[in-house]
Amino acid sequence: MELLDKLNWRYATKAMNGTPVSQDKIDRILEAARLAPTSSGLQPFEIIVITNQEIKEQIKPVAWNQSVVTDCSHLLVFAAWDTYTAERINEVFDLTNSVRGYENEGFENYRQMLLNTYPQKSAEENFTHAAKQAYIAFGLAIAAAAYEGVDATPMEGFDPEAVDTILGLKEKGLGSAIILPLGYRDESNDWLANQVKVRKSTEKLITVLD
Amino acid sequence: MELLDKLNWRYATKAMNGTPVSQDKIDRILEAARLAPTSSGLQPFEIIVITNQEIKEQIKPVAWNQSVVTDCSHLLVFAAWDTYTAERINEVFDLTNSVRGYENEGFENYRQMLLNTYPQKSAEENFTHAAKQAYIAFGLAIAAAAYEGVDATPMEGFDPEAVDTILGLKEKGLGSAIILPLGYRDESNDWLANQVKVRKSTEKLITVLD
Repeated sequence: MELLDKLNWRYATKAMNGTPVSQDKIDRILEAARLAPTSSGLQPFEIIVITNQEIKEQIKPVAWNQSVVTDCSHLLVFAAWDTYTAERINEVFDLTNSVRGYENEGFENYRQMLLNTYPQKSAEENFTHAAKQAYIAFGLAIAAAAYEGVDATPMEGFDPEAVDTILGLKEKGLGSAIILPLGYRDESNDWLANQVKVRKSTEKLITVLD
Repeated sequence: MELLDKLNWRYATKAMNGTPVSQDKIDRILEAARLAPTSSGLQPFEIIVITNQEIKEQIKPVAWNQSVVTDCSHLLVFAAWDTYTAERINEVFDLTNSVRGYENEGFENYRQMLLNTYPQKSAEENFTHAAKQAYIAFGLAIAAAAYEGVDATPMEGFDPEAVDTILGLKEKGLGSAIILPLGYRDESNDWLANQVKVRKSTEKLITVLD
């Protein structure tokens, strides 16, 4: 299976060589994230795609000074909704009705159920839930990047508040959840490039109940 | 790109026909999840694979009575660590040293940093963090299932405590985070099978800073 070969090829690249990734590859990686399933189809996040070198330079010191932040081609910031609001929920349901061209009673009941629960929860609980959905899209973006032969560095190691400030995310009702530099590995400068990939055994990770 | 075609083909299947998925496909889907990147490589989750029909029948009523829980071929339960402990962290770092055949000072310093931070955090905070890592693997499993032409139903709609009890997860230091029935769509009984896939536009979801 070609996808598994690609997933074995990929690793959390620690040094990139600055080579730009072509727009068509970036578009397909972002499309995979856009197609990701999310809870109730709300897609409660946005993706900020940074190629601007000055902005990358601002982010680097609040991301443990990792060189991939500036040496990557495209820096993806997955930013989750700070909370669920009636307006945000309605926008998604209205879009669905508009695309499908009709209203459905069951679907409208489901909308009401969400309206009666999500906005009443704490912003913190909602942000965590929204961030989890972003992690699913993040997983699909990682799979798509590997499939395209593009290196990526899944990173939680950054100061979310600082990144929010640099990108003005709070004003947009968003909070940075996880970031993904995309580019090409610089093998000669990457200590991790030629290390064996280590994963727990299938026996340790998976239990079958048959 | 074949992967994108497959991601467009997939949808959150609401009715499955009971046809078994072959073991080689299941193995590849699980392998994709096993290869998923996780924070510090800890892989802080396990996957319970249920084909036992009696157990599926027990879970169905605590999962909104959704028919896919019993009509799927394999029910995957992604269960995250209930917290991070020194023992769990050391086990992963020891495994890495064992596989790579040597110790590295930087890596050992990183181990100490984790030992000095994670176990001191609340179990709730740690479980949330571990669950997020499971969501990345979940994303890769969804991509792999689509790639294999296997239908899947990403599901948060279940009572985690009840599932934990049925599967005895608490005793294993785990908590169910998200579930994924795998199988084959029953188009004639699935209201969602022929609906247009609705996603936000690229313009709405993605902001480019260049």
